[in-house]
Amino acid sequence: MMTEDVKAKASNGKATPYRKEEDFLGEIKIPNQAYYGVQTRRAMDNFQVTGIPISHEPFMIEALGYVKKAAARANVKKGVLDPELGQKIEEACDLIISGRLNDHFCTDLIQGGAGTSINMNANEVIANVVLENMGYDKGNYDICHPNNHVNCSQSTNDVYPTAFRIALLLRIDAYIKELKLLANAMAAKAREFRHVLKMGRTQLQDAVPMSLGDEFKGWSITILEEVDRLSDSKKLIQEINMGATAIGTKVNAPEGYPELVTRYLTEITGLPLKISEDLIEATSDTGAYVQLSGVMKRSAVKISKICNDLRLLSSGPRTGLNEINLPRLQPGSSIMPGKVNPVIPEMVNQTAYYVIGADVTVTMASEAGQLQLNVMEPVIAFSLFTSIQWMTNACSALRSKCIDGITANEDHCREMVMNSIGIVTLLNPLLGYKVCSSIAKEALETGKSIYDLTVKEKKLVNQSQWDQLFSPDNLMNPQYVQKA
Amino acid sequence: MMTEDVKAKASNGKATPYRKEEDFLGEIKIPNQAYYGVQTRRAMDNFQVTGIPISHEPFMIEALGYVKKAAARANVKKGVLDPELGQKIEEACDLIISGRLNDHFCTDLIQGGAGTSINMNANEVIANVVLENMGYDKGNYDICHPNNHVNCSQSTNDVYPTAFRIALLLRIDAYIKELKLLANAMAAKAREFRHVLKMGRTQLQDAVPMSLGDEFKGWSITILEEVDRLSDSKKLIQEINMGATAIGTKVNAPEGYPELVTRYLTEITGLPLKISEDLIEATSDTGAYVQLSGVMKRSAVKISKICNDLRLLSSGPRTGLNEINLPRLQPGSSIMPGKVNPVIPEMVNQTAYYVIGADVTVTMASEAGQLQLNVMEPVIAFSLFTSIQWMTNACSALRSKCIDGITANEDHCREMVMNSIGIVTLLNPLLGYKVCSSIAKEALETGKSIYDLTVKEKKLVNQSQWDQLFSPDNLMNPQYVQKA
Amino acid sequence: MMTEDVKAKASNGKATPYRKEEDFLGEIKIPNQAYYGVQTRRAMDNFQVTGIPISHEPFMIEALGYVKKAAARANVKKGVLDPELGQKIEEACDLIISGRLNDHFCTDLIQGGAGTSINMNANEVIANVVLENMGYDKGNYDICHPNNHVNCSQSTNDVYPTAFRIALLLRIDAYIKELKLLANAMAAKAREFRHVLKMGRTQLQDAVPMSLGDEFKGWSITILEEVDRLSDSKKLIQEINMGATAIGTKVNAPEGYPELVTRYLTEITGLPLKISEDLIEATSDTGAYVQLSGVMKRSAVKISKICNDLRLLSSGPRTGLNEINLPRLQPGSSIMPGKVNPVIPEMVNQTAYYVIGADVTVTMASEAGQLQLNVMEPVIAFSLFTSIQWMTNACSALRSKCIDGITANEDHCREMVMNSIGIVTLLNPLLGYKVCSSIAKEALETGKSIYDLTVKEKKLVNQSQWDQLFSPDNLMNPQYVQKA
Amino acid sequence: MMTEDVKAKASNGKATPYRKEEDFLGEIKIPNQAYYGVQTRRAMDNFQVTGIPISHEPFMIEALGYVKKAAARANVKKGVLDPELGQKIEEACDLIISGRLNDHFCTDLIQGGAGTSINMNANEVIANVVLENMGYDKGNYDICHPNNHVNCSQSTNDVYPTAFRIALLLRIDAYIKELKLLANAMAAKAREFRHVLKMGRTQLQDAVPMSLGDEFKGWSITILEEVDRLSDSKKLIQEINMGATAIGTKVNAPEGYPELVTRYLTEITGLPLKISEDLIEATSDTGAYVQLSGVMKRSAVKISKICNDLRLLSSGPRTGLNEINLPRLQPGSSIMPGKVNPVIPEMVNQTAYYVIGADVTVTMASEAGQLQLNVMEPVIAFSLFTSIQWMTNACSALRSKCIDGITANEDHCREMVMNSIGIVTLLNPLLGYKVCSSIAKEALETGKSIYDLTVKEKKLVNQSQWDQLFSPDNLMNPQYVQKA
Repeated sequence: MMTEDVKAKASNGKATPYRKEEDFLGEIKIPNQAYYGVQTRRAMDNFQVTGIPISHEPFMIEALGYVKKAAARANVKKGVLDPELGQKIEEACDLIISGRLNDHFCTDLIQGGAGTSINMNANEVIANVVLENMGYDKGNYDICHPNNHVNCSQSTNDVYPTAFRIALLLRIDAYIKELKLLANAMAAKAREFRHVLKMGRTQLQDAVPMSLGDEFKGWSITILEEVDRLSDSKKLIQEINMGATAIGTKVNAPEGYPELVTRYLTEITGLPLKISEDLIEATSDTGAYVQLSGVMKRSAVKISKICNDLRLLSSGPRTGLNEINLPRLQPGSSIMPGKVNPVIPEMVNQTAYYVIGADVTVTMASEAGQLQLNVMEPVIAFSLFTSIQWMTNACSALRSKCIDGITANEDHCREMVMNSIGIVTLLNPLLGYKVCSSIAKEALETGKSIYDLTVKEKKLVNQSQWDQLFSPDNLMNPQYVQKA
Repeated sequence: MMTEDVKAKASNGKATPYRKEEDFLGEIKIPNQAYYGVQTRRAMDNFQVTGIPISHEPFMIEALGYVKKAAARANVKKGVLDPELGQKIEEACDLIISGRLNDHFCTDLIQGGAGTSINMNANEVIANVVLENMGYDKGNYDICHPNNHVNCSQSTNDVYPTAFRIALLLRIDAYIKELKLLANAMAAKAREFRHVLKMGRTQLQDAVPMSLGDEFKGWSITILEEVDRLSDSKKLIQEINMGATAIGTKVNAPEGYPELVTRYLTEITGLPLKISEDLIEATSDTGAYVQLSGVMKRSAVKISKICNDLRLLSSGPRTGLNEINLPRLQPGSSIMPGKVNPVIPEMVNQTAYYVIGADVTVTMASEAGQLQLNVMEPVIAFSLFTSIQWMTNACSALRSKCIDGITANEDHCREMVMNSIGIVTLLNPLLGYKVCSSIAKEALETGKSIYDLTVKEKKLVNQSQWDQLFSPDNLMNPQYVQKA
Repeated sequence: MMTEDVKAKASNGKATPYRKEEDFLGEIKIPNQAYYGVQTRRAMDNFQVTGIPISHEPFMIEALGYVKKAAARANVKKGVLDPELGQKIEEACDLIISGRLNDHFCTDLIQGGAGTSINMNANEVIANVVLENMGYDKGNYDICHPNNHVNCSQSTNDVYPTAFRIALLLRIDAYIKELKLLANAMAAKAREFRHVLKMGRTQLQDAVPMSLGDEFKGWSITILEEVDRLSDSKKLIQEINMGATAIGTKVNAPEGYPELVTRYLTEITGLPLKISEDLIEATSDTGAYVQLSGVMKRSAVKISKICNDLRLLSSGPRTGLNEINLPRLQPGSSIMPGKVNPVIPEMVNQTAYYVIGADVTVTMASEAGQLQLNVMEPVIAFSLFTSIQWMTNACSALRSKCIDGITANEDHCREMVMNSIGIVTLLNPLLGYKVCSSIAKEALETGKSIYDLTVKEKKLVNQSQWDQLFSPDNLMNPQYVQKA
Repeated sequence: MMTEDVKAKASNGKATPYRKEEDFLGEIKIPNQAYYGVQTRRAMDNFQVTGIPISHEPFMIEALGYVKKAAARANVKKGVLDPELGQKIEEACDLIISGRLNDHFCTDLIQGGAGTSINMNANEVIANVVLENMGYDKGNYDICHPNNHVNCSQSTNDVYPTAFRIALLLRIDAYIKELKLLANAMAAKAREFRHVLKMGRTQLQDAVPMSLGDEFKGWSITILEEVDRLSDSKKLIQEINMGATAIGTKVNAPEGYPELVTRYLTEITGLPLKISEDLIEATSDTGAYVQLSGVMKRSAVKISKICNDLRLLSSGPRTGLNEINLPRLQPGSSIMPGKVNPVIPEMVNQTAYYVIGADVTVTMASEAGQLQLNVMEPVIAFSLFTSIQWMTNACSALRSKCIDGITANEDHCREMVMNSIGIVTLLNPLLGYKVCSSIAKEALETGKSIYDLTVKEKKLVNQSQWDQLFSPDNLMNPQYVQKA
């Protein structure tokens, strides 16, 4: 249905004139204003699962433009493509790169054929742009043929993964940028809350005191580690297999073409791409995607954990932990007046669950590769593109609509610490584990404070010892106190 | 970005006049032609992860219309809503049900707040339609208030899951319909191929002969079992919690309202809905979704396995099994002329992997429910809606573009059987496992046929025994032959 | 290593005399006291991944005994097995069923060959027991042959899944029993805590009041639903394919044998087994396992959610929710004196995560089935056996070491309710959503109570209205109050 | 049950004398010969889910010995532990490291308490060994106390993850070693099969020719990449948090202790451990495990894909691809004589599915971490230990029992190539995509060979061109042929 919309948009009118195109399966009618051709049209009929066209990831279309441009240049250089035609193809690629023809990339994101339809969609659009620019009718492929000329020295099996990888690199960079901003926002809060004394908790049970700022600092650091992991993953994604053609044996590619097209592609994109050392291995291997998906999952897991913590710490306001306040963004209930919910962390949690599920999809698709190719790459692309795009959006919201506006309930935090039993831990080196345990037990049973029990009642600690050990500073950054 | 489109579409013009609305967080501007109000507008700002609005699942909007209509009717009956206003609300709901206001349901599919924004989106659109129909300006909520009137006796926590369940029931029925058509198509092929003798394989190794028709019959039957499992799941989905309000204690719902609204909802939808026996349990429970997701996964697994088999059996044409031919739908390679690929099974496999991943998403979201509510329901809804919708589309394509057009290479199938070693199994009762093993071994080592070895060389079987045992009929439906 | 232990145990001594056995791959030495034979011995060498022998699931060995016994009886009845030998085989099966030969079932739980090694292990042990009982030497298979006699009319491809299903049925029943006990324990607490007023929470934010007993009641009910789902699953597992032999064509099985052996097996086990309607479909289908695994996952998800709640509600003791106390089972920290952790719910959570992961294993193994058989059944068996066994153990501990001993902090629970803002919801029908929202906002900002604001300051509610609305009874079971 | 065995083994006799020990929860009886104490005993009662004791991973016990030894040395150096007692503790640790006390580490692999029971198990065993060596009775903890002395300056929350990481490093190294051997075995086969011409296949359809050796070479290279990924992961695992104590604030650890104990631990183990830059972050972070688990999953996916290929290529022998022969290891059927199955690849596939499922377990456990600690680490440890151990075993079998013995059916491979249609691709540069497509189509429809069609019938290619293009050498390593 959405595919229909796209078709309509591409056709842009009602009384559409048609042209006829044919392939070895027969003849078919194409709306005349469409730049795509017969093979794309077949694919539009064949693949209608999601209704989401590949142009949903504009980086993918841009990347196809880069790949086809570099290939044309290399083909000219290698003498297997007419220089003038090569130039026209490069110009058509620039139009693709600009994004202005995205509506003509209509195949569904989930498709069979290992990306052949996407590659042919690009080949056909480019051929027809070239033809039009040269004053010919669309479909006049003798002049500029989608396979013989645009796809010269190429196969879907090197073009598609290469374009996919370039698009991923662009997409990952956008995510890294957001992660850094998020980590910075947390670091700013870490500084702001440096002096806020609060109770640390392990296993949801009161543990020992800490600084709220240090909690935020930990989050900031843990997010930055994701930037490192993503950067590592990029190195694997930068490895491409242009020139491998059908199965990695370089059949139908001129001598030296793989290195040359890789060099041009690096120049055109500015990305540090490199050619795989073994093109046969590279053509069927989807390990880099599994690795990237695993790293995306890791970042989802960590950010989800932080969102869980944010929701715990801001729980209440009266019957929860109530240590921090998240920005109040929207009324939280259609029935409970005044209720406000942690909607942004909740949204981020759900995005993370999507990413974690998508990792399983990528895993299965990767494992299903057979022999010289993995035909399941389109669903891998779908999963990775949405995972990265959505996590990027989620992190942006988390920063700007949540972290940036968090405030602390400083007094409440401090009172909880001083009222806790867990602070008895600081007396361990002085009194030993066994005595401290019995004090803790008595505190629990009687409701008394550790101060009352140890200083006032049992006189196990004198006031000055207490003041030294239980000052906010020492509670947040405890110094070891040797037994007298 | 897509959200922007939707906004633009909903606003339908450039120099948009605005109205002002407020909630307890302050005042906000709303495009005047928008039927949604302040809370929806906030949600549009807050939730921008996927860019896919909730109207992507039109059944969900339709279901919200049913729920609000039934609630209005029950409220009037219970005397807590003015009858005239109730009638106006019902009329507005009919407009929603018709789908004509889908563009005004703009919140993102992945959202925080446990569906509050979706419920308020419905409440606001209905209130403003009512106001307009009564001749008032939009936003004049004293007359008809989204919370006090439209949401009367309701909470997001009963409205949202109830609407979700109704939408699921409609969605499941569409899937069941496609599954039945698919099973029928396979059954038709089963009849067509009943007489085609072929080799059965276990562990990809030659086993014993069978009928190709029986292979298709097995698929048909296994698909029909999915219809049964989905029907079972529907029973769980039919259980709703209307009247539970906030947490299942029925706070602010009139006595008897839960039963009454359920009765009206059943009448309006024609679906056999029933009220949960324990509304507190029901309000936080997402078990029915986990069950349904598990069943969706099961159907995905089974259909994926069948597609794997289709791809194996049609492998070749010259260097594979080549038992069957799938319809040739599109050229299969940009470089390899004449190659045609099994694109439809490949597409279905990938859809199945999506569904299997989505099941993990549902699982995590369900496990993340806390105390009296599961706030992660929106991502559960996203996952189930896409899984069911996409599997429905995939099955439709599998039937019409693949199964229906399959042909068999009957001669090749039969020759492979007669040339196989596995047929020695039929001699087991006559010659014993040990003798048969040594014949098999000799056949493998020498390349000789079982016939040559047993009838001609070793004279272990005479020609008439052979003819009886190894007739196509007996090979496909072997009768036990007692040792002489 | 563990395999070595098992071998040692089975050999029971040092200077072991050996016998020689052969199959079509050659001759091999077997420790003389071992009841298994050449094929089992090869499997012990080939499969050494987990070190956990199949006897880790004793129900599996027991089930093999039942299957072989029923087959022998049917073979005699059908005239394809000597009655006296049949009787001896039945007697040997009884020994297997008793569990006394479990040490002779030594193949690793994860094995190739689709269970052939397990089936042959049973065939060989039975044959050798028969031989010994008849006064012959072990290995003298002319008298009683593992394949020709013990495995008569059978194939691994019907024996293994049938035994697997019988073992599952026994295993599921043990789990159902524990789930019922757990639900009962929760129901008992529900009655005990019926009068404990506490705050309900949605999205970790204060919502409206409820009874602690009703919270436990909800858990009890939700657990009982799992019993229903498991019972549904059992129906699928009860379907067996005895007589299908190699691929479902019944090759080498006498006419009528499938029905007969199923009847005997039903009599012997007392389980309501039934024969599949299509044996070809049944032989490759693993849908019942996927369904059962999905249901196991569902129960894991739900029980994990309850354990999360238990940990939240018992968080503290001083800086958490502290509504309930779990039994104090063991010191909770090596450094923090007096700390006690919710170790049982934590253990149950982890068990649930195992089960959820195992469901993915089952899913992949099921999808990997090809053509006439699913060779991955052993890892499906491993996953299901451990999942069910471990959840059974976890539920037993959850009941006896946690639920049974829970106490409530009744005063603290009540004080939190009366101090909350969420109770303003009860004033909605009287004052409207907008007024209530502004009261809630003021309460939040000033720290005042709803009572002070509405009764004392603003006089929006009089004392008697308040007393009626905010009595513990009405808070837990609110009656609708019409606007005056 | 298995726990019982372990208990029995540890108690080593029937009429066991007991000693009494107590903690703050009360007194308990301990078998006198047991080195563990009261807290371990409680844990043995509390945790009985899997029946598999932590000593199932001997590296974990060894690692605990290293950690405790380094801590004792640092404590002495820092003046917080008596030098003589420190020496005795170090000696006891050496005994633990030797593995001779493994039977005294009895807690179940899946346990609550975040590893406290494992840490206390080590503390108690060490204390009692020290006491015995000093001539005291076990349990006389005034002399050497599990908490005050053995656990001095430590918390479970730094000891447990540190020991876990050391054990992982040892475990990973064993896996890396096997992966390298496996890659080498594949490389050897690559050389052996360099001259074997075979058909390459994409999407299970005939593509273009290649060398069988190059297929094995690709596998070898792809496996070696896993070694790189594992080595990367090790860097994350090498980061430890000793000295963090309870939550990372270093409470109760002497100044400078974290760096010192890390240095000692590095010296003792020879592993390049380093202290985390932020101990608060490190104490709750489980990202390194998620990363490692993702990498394990990746290697499982890749090796599973290779095993799928092995099973495809060896399918047959008569009705499959039959390009290669796997070693014949065991009879493959109880009913089909002479059948041999690819049991080792099948076993490896199943192990891979286990690992993939375990990754989901690790993911959920990691996401479930809350605030200052992740209490779910034990199930993460269980999952990672089994995954790595089992993949190591699986790879060892894959190499020694499968890859090493593979042979090629060279003639059959070559005949399939020359009989294929896919070789028409090599004529593309000469004849163009369109002409080649129609030749391919004709070949398919008539059954004719490409040679007959192009050289003999249509005379599009002359014999010498054919010989050049279609020589085995050019088919395996095609040189580009410019259009004349």
